[in-house]
Amino acid sequence: MNKNDIKITLTSHPKEKPAPETLLFGREFTDHMFTMDYSPEKGWHDPQIIPYGPFQMDPATMVLHYSQSVFEGMKAYKTPEGKVVLFRPEMNFKRLNISNERLCIPEIDVDFAITALKELIKVDQDWIPTAPGTSLYIRPFTMGMDKSLGVTPSSHCKFAIILSPVGPYYKEGINPVKIYVEDEYVRAVKGGIGFTKATANYAASLKGQQKAMKLGYAQVLWLDGVERKYVEEVGAMNVFFKIDGELITPSLEGSILAGVTRDSVIQIARSMGIKVTERKLSIQEIFEAADSGKLEEAFGSGTAAVITPVGLLTWEDRSITIADGKNGDFTMKVYNELTGIQNGVVEDRFGWIVSVA
Amino acid sequence: MNKNDIKITLTSHPKEKPAPETLLFGREFTDHMFTMDYSPEKGWHDPQIIPYGPFQMDPATMVLHYSQSVFEGMKAYKTPEGKVVLFRPEMNFKRLNISNERLCIPEIDVDFAITALKELIKVDQDWIPTAPGTSLYIRPFTMGMDKSLGVTPSSHCKFAIILSPVGPYYKEGINPVKIYVEDEYVRAVKGGIGFTKATANYAASLKGQQKAMKLGYAQVLWLDGVERKYVEEVGAMNVFFKIDGELITPSLEGSILAGVTRDSVIQIARSMGIKVTERKLSIQEIFEAADSGKLEEAFGSGTAAVITPVGLLTWEDRSITIADGKNGDFTMKVYNELTGIQNGVVEDRFGWIVSVA
Repeated sequence: MNKNDIKITLTSHPKEKPAPETLLFGREFTDHMFTMDYSPEKGWHDPQIIPYGPFQMDPATMVLHYSQSVFEGMKAYKTPEGKVVLFRPEMNFKRLNISNERLCIPEIDVDFAITALKELIKVDQDWIPTAPGTSLYIRPFTMGMDKSLGVTPSSHCKFAIILSPVGPYYKEGINPVKIYVEDEYVRAVKGGIGFTKATANYAASLKGQQKAMKLGYAQVLWLDGVERKYVEEVGAMNVFFKIDGELITPSLEGSILAGVTRDSVIQIARSMGIKVTERKLSIQEIFEAADSGKLEEAFGSGTAAVITPVGLLTWEDRSITIADGKNGDFTMKVYNELTGIQNGVVEDRFGWIVSVA
Repeated sequence: MNKNDIKITLTSHPKEKPAPETLLFGREFTDHMFTMDYSPEKGWHDPQIIPYGPFQMDPATMVLHYSQSVFEGMKAYKTPEGKVVLFRPEMNFKRLNISNERLCIPEIDVDFAITALKELIKVDQDWIPTAPGTSLYIRPFTMGMDKSLGVTPSSHCKFAIILSPVGPYYKEGINPVKIYVEDEYVRAVKGGIGFTKATANYAASLKGQQKAMKLGYAQVLWLDGVERKYVEEVGAMNVFFKIDGELITPSLEGSILAGVTRDSVIQIARSMGIKVTERKLSIQEIFEAADSGKLEEAFGSGTAAVITPVGLLTWEDRSITIADGKNGDFTMKVYNELTGIQNGVVEDRFGWIVSVA
């Protein structure tokens, strides 16, 4: 399939665009969406851009009963020159296929997915907000669509992309958050689906997040499901700790998402001459580093918030303050570099930016 | 809420009922369904029985992106006297609430859910098949319905019940199946959601099932996610091993579903004077019991197939045949007792049967 196969039906009822200052995360959607369907006979077929609107879903649809579904998250930005750009889209669609494979959903052609996304963004490009911290959040997702209650992979699937103009993830700007080290609930385990963006991972995480928020924390720090010792992710983000001049992030061993932002942070840090190590990192080691004054900074990384500094970490009955509870210098350097590249105000020396037009 | 709050809208286009011999599992659905909705303001509200038909789902609906959804499975039977009966429905709806709680979905009133189910079945009672091995499969489910991509529990939810006339789970009758002990993929881990009927658990299981089927096995035997030593479930069923006269089933320690059929098997076995033990059971121990001639029988238990005898078990490079690859005597005794009670041909000495009319 190529660009010419995409059938475009424009809305006859364009919505009013939200005022930039009212934008939240993932609450408003643009006028159009992309969809295509899979059947064993036709493969992926019927690619189309259509008005954003409800799916007609049979109550027995597989995705509603057995969560056969995965997603991606990425962003489009408008540069000061008015150019529309994407950030490393091929990484997201390659990862979508890694998730698809684990969930028994047929592979999607990465080049065609990028083409489809570009076409969709062109149709809705007036929806890309330009105020500082805003962007167009992109949500590609796939779902098993068989109307059957048998627990077997669906033979019919749907792929869709929806777009949401979003405000800054943190309304008050970038500020350190308080994190609760979760010791009861587990997000994922090796051999499971934690390395994918299966929707199922997020279901498992809701309760821990809710508990942390009730206790006054912004997010959960997840420990591994086997030994309950090693840090894995923070909320729905990857996590980094700067200890004694070295940047350390958990190694990808089957239960941690290979974040696009994570990879970008690693490359940026190395280009700045910082030693970056991917390895198992125990919560004990982090608290010991804090005790000996060697824990310098900590932050989460992800598409939605980009970088989230960690100001306080509570584990059982102990709390440690990180970087005096302020945004760490290195954290902010990475944040500025990364968001600068994304917004087109810092030179893209890594070749990460893909132009839409 | 009570019975009188349920608004009933009958279909003007009743479907043709499938011939009993064509019935599969969960492919055909009756003419009506029950739905009700939850909002923070109204709680659960608008209970209604309406014609079976598609949900209008916004593409950003929570359940499609973060799998905030759980389900139940149960059956209705028509007895030889024409009475419509349910099997232990309160256990299913209580478990639905255990699942709801873990997935941050508001609790449902168990008595009202049973009332709603009875009313729905009354409307569609002509759909209950009566041929041997057939029944009306009941699928209650809840879903997070917020139209938002934020990873937080949905504040709006939907509860629905759909009904499916089903044939015997195994077309050729009850026969031993071949089981593959999965050593790569993991279904669940303590601290996660394995003890619930979260739809997310089934997503994680698809790949292992697919692998086992490709290798010529009917199902997977799942090992625990921590030590990869202890047996947990078989396919989507609980599992029992009869070793040296004793019936052993994995104890419920956070990653195993508390099966209604499992509980019923335990009670039936004890009433037959069999010692039943719930404990950790390693795959090593099972193979050693086979070697020493003490492994007598093995079977899975669940609502869909009720009892599934295990005739062969393959673990790494070793296979063992159980009960000479035949249906074990004790297995069949339990099967006949259980299905007899369910179908109303064996006296219900446990008080498990609930009449619909």
